[in-house]
Amino acid sequence: MREDAWSGKDVLSILDFSRADLETLFETADGFVNRPGSVPKSLTDRIVATAFFEPSTRTRLSFSTAALKMGAKVIDLSPDVSSVLKGESLSDTIRMLESYSDLIVMRHPSEGAALLASEVSDVPIVNGGDGSQHHPSQAMLDLYTIRKLKGGVDGLRYVVLGDTRYARTAASFLYGLAKYDPKSVYLVSPEGLRLRNEVRNMVDKLGLKIEELDDLEPILDKVDVIYMTRIQKERFPDPNEYEKVKGSYRINKMVLSKAKDAIVLHPLPRTNELSYDVDDLPNAAYMEQARLGVPVRMALLHLVLGERGR
Amino acid sequence: MREDAWSGKDVLSILDFSRADLETLFETADGFVNRPGSVPKSLTDRIVATAFFEPSTRTRLSFSTAALKMGAKVIDLSPDVSSVLKGESLSDTIRMLESYSDLIVMRHPSEGAALLASEVSDVPIVNGGDGSQHHPSQAMLDLYTIRKLKGGVDGLRYVVLGDTRYARTAASFLYGLAKYDPKSVYLVSPEGLRLRNEVRNMVDKLGLKIEELDDLEPILDKVDVIYMTRIQKERFPDPNEYEKVKGSYRINKMVLSKAKDAIVLHPLPRTNELSYDVDDLPNAAYMEQARLGVPVRMALLHLVLGERGR
Amino acid sequence: MREDAWSGKDVLSILDFSRADLETLFETADGFVNRPGSVPKSLTDRIVATAFFEPSTRTRLSFSTAALKMGAKVIDLSPDVSSVLKGESLSDTIRMLESYSDLIVMRHPSEGAALLASEVSDVPIVNGGDGSQHHPSQAMLDLYTIRKLKGGVDGLRYVVLGDTRYARTAASFLYGLAKYDPKSVYLVSPEGLRLRNEVRNMVDKLGLKIEELDDLEPILDKVDVIYMTRIQKERFPDPNEYEKVKGSYRINKMVLSKAKDAIVLHPLPRTNELSYDVDDLPNAAYMEQARLGVPVRMALLHLVLGERGR
Repeated sequence: MREDAWSGKDVLSILDFSRADLETLFETADGFVNRPGSVPKSLTDRIVATAFFEPSTRTRLSFSTAALKMGAKVIDLSPDVSSVLKGESLSDTIRMLESYSDLIVMRHPSEGAALLASEVSDVPIVNGGDGSQHHPSQAMLDLYTIRKLKGGVDGLRYVVLGDTRYARTAASFLYGLAKYDPKSVYLVSPEGLRLRNEVRNMVDKLGLKIEELDDLEPILDKVDVIYMTRIQKERFPDPNEYEKVKGSYRINKMVLSKAKDAIVLHPLPRTNELSYDVDDLPNAAYMEQARLGVPVRMALLHLVLGERGR
Repeated sequence: MREDAWSGKDVLSILDFSRADLETLFETADGFVNRPGSVPKSLTDRIVATAFFEPSTRTRLSFSTAALKMGAKVIDLSPDVSSVLKGESLSDTIRMLESYSDLIVMRHPSEGAALLASEVSDVPIVNGGDGSQHHPSQAMLDLYTIRKLKGGVDGLRYVVLGDTRYARTAASFLYGLAKYDPKSVYLVSPEGLRLRNEVRNMVDKLGLKIEELDDLEPILDKVDVIYMTRIQKERFPDPNEYEKVKGSYRINKMVLSKAKDAIVLHPLPRTNELSYDVDDLPNAAYMEQARLGVPVRMALLHLVLGERGR
Repeated sequence: MREDAWSGKDVLSILDFSRADLETLFETADGFVNRPGSVPKSLTDRIVATAFFEPSTRTRLSFSTAALKMGAKVIDLSPDVSSVLKGESLSDTIRMLESYSDLIVMRHPSEGAALLASEVSDVPIVNGGDGSQHHPSQAMLDLYTIRKLKGGVDGLRYVVLGDTRYARTAASFLYGLAKYDPKSVYLVSPEGLRLRNEVRNMVDKLGLKIEELDDLEPILDKVDVIYMTRIQKERFPDPNEYEKVKGSYRINKMVLSKAKDAIVLHPLPRTNELSYDVDDLPNAAYMEQARLGVPVRMALLHLVLGERGR
């Protein structure tokens, strides 16, 4: 067990964690999933602060649920009723939360916001998503879901579909995959939504080989995992660009008839890129993925905060 | 005791519960009111999710209070900071909450939203109000208040006053009364706010005899319970229609001088249909009614969720 | 110990508490600061309601944190999703909260709102700021911070800087100082932001001698405590007036080079009146001040609510 990688640490990017660190996380989560009755109340008397400067439902609520299940109390900064509106700087807000809490889960639209927060805070910062690259707990639960449903992450064939430019989940997932040994990784996205150079460079540096394609069709029967991303209107500088691509790269029952054994992951919420007729297919793994967000985040909070007092 | 009617069940409409079921609820609430020190922490380690897609204060906060008093943790989906804004479907949102919680209390503007939620959710759904007919926990606490202050619900004379068209509390209260044997039930409302046909048909089918009147005056000295509803601007398709009726059917001290023994119920909040000079009269029962919302909702949560693990 | 001054009482204004009462509070807070492990869970099974009709972050979150640390549960009325929007009166809202909770912490823009609330509520009201004069828990933690960092409040030289007209923190701080024996109290503010007559009259009545100045420069080397206030745009009836003064009375590293031993207090959030280059100076006491808000509010809640059940 490499708990030292976690205890008291910030969780800013999946890049900061080794494969062995992730295995520690996943084994801890396994314990919580397999023996729910034995979940330790290791966060008793701890305060977890949630600070979401961008809307979020799954991330905020699943972290809150995870914290509460481990015995912590949760305080929530709602940005609309906050000093942020009075023009307070992020570092002042974080220093306030730091003095009230034992750990801060934050989301912020700006790249590097979580890193900045970690520099001013003595309590651990968990990045619930910032900028367009990092959403570590999402990538961790994505990998955990694959590990659980496919028996492992290595040796599989992946396609990341849709918005690979603005979706931080896509970049984080690739960074996570780079810790493993996938057989192949395809990226299928429209021209305006291709990978950013900084992400492509990082993926190269990490030694992850990816192949970019315009169309899903030719590789549909060659993939084990389809990782979808929502095509988010709010990520587009130009609304016309959004209108052009919003229907592309849609997955439905008919499409999946050519990919019987592939599981479909999606961080959710979905818009129209993922059809409801997929929900009842054995391919659909996204609801299980959302559900597993709670034990993975419980494990994360336990390793970061629960171990400290021992 | 008919606890099987409650344990693990959805609470979508008071129509789904028999008089005996309601008595089980009321006796459970009596226990909590009479011996507050003996309230069991029967929801310990349970997560209750609140999801209000329409503003609410009393319903949300009294359910939260009830859940906390029984030992549960509460997570709250605030629609304004939620994926709902990103266009997520209700069923996806409910499935997310289902995977985080053990019971969902929801309010929604659309008729049938709670039923839809119950179809996709494996955890019990408690309808905190949807559409214009169903608000079961409100009707339950209304009946409980009458039972407590008047010694019972049978044999009394009732008037439902004001908006009987748009107020879901009025429809739910009538459905509740139909489980009992009231001596008489009058409805007094302006022309545009008369009972909907589907509600009138249901009331007929349930065998509850009602008499609709234009004016309160003639029956004022013949009623034991005055059930008021707020005249809600937001329920009117046409604002002019609202302006025409907003002052009608106002209850004040002078009016009540002709109804000395009648108790006045109001689900609150009030606007100007219920004068503040009523507050100090013995007729005023609406504050007690609000207060009793907590033990009734504690009893409801206890019967639905607290009994399951036994 | 004068616990009777606190137990079950409303906390509307620091004027209602004697110096001995404040000492009781501060000694209780000292206990929590010095022996965090021995904090009693004296609010177990209590519900604390927070009702902020004006944005607040520090006050709301530090009260919530304090309540949770003492074992209480917290329910929060968010005004934007509340009946308030449906036109409910403050007294009805308070009576609702009273029936759900054991103590209400509230903030309201109107002078006297907390007093009104206390008149309709049987549970204690804690004023988290109302109107332009009263914010008692803030003044208490301000004095506590000075006591802790300077060894006491008596005999020191103070300057209150900036907005002394609209900032309720400034008025409350002066009312608090009047309980003690400061050596001198200067007020430095631009013409449009001078003390209101009612505050000046009260300060006179309390026997606190103040000296009003246009400029900080001449007294900078003669003060021990610099009490700053934010120049809040929302307090100005006329935006032009705001633009005229917003840069005045700015404190930065250069200014403080003439006041080496003075500590700088600020209720936060800051805008541009307090420069970030002060943060690393030994003068900076405002982060410690924010941090001490939690134990002071824990002590307050403990004395008001925790002692009642004994």
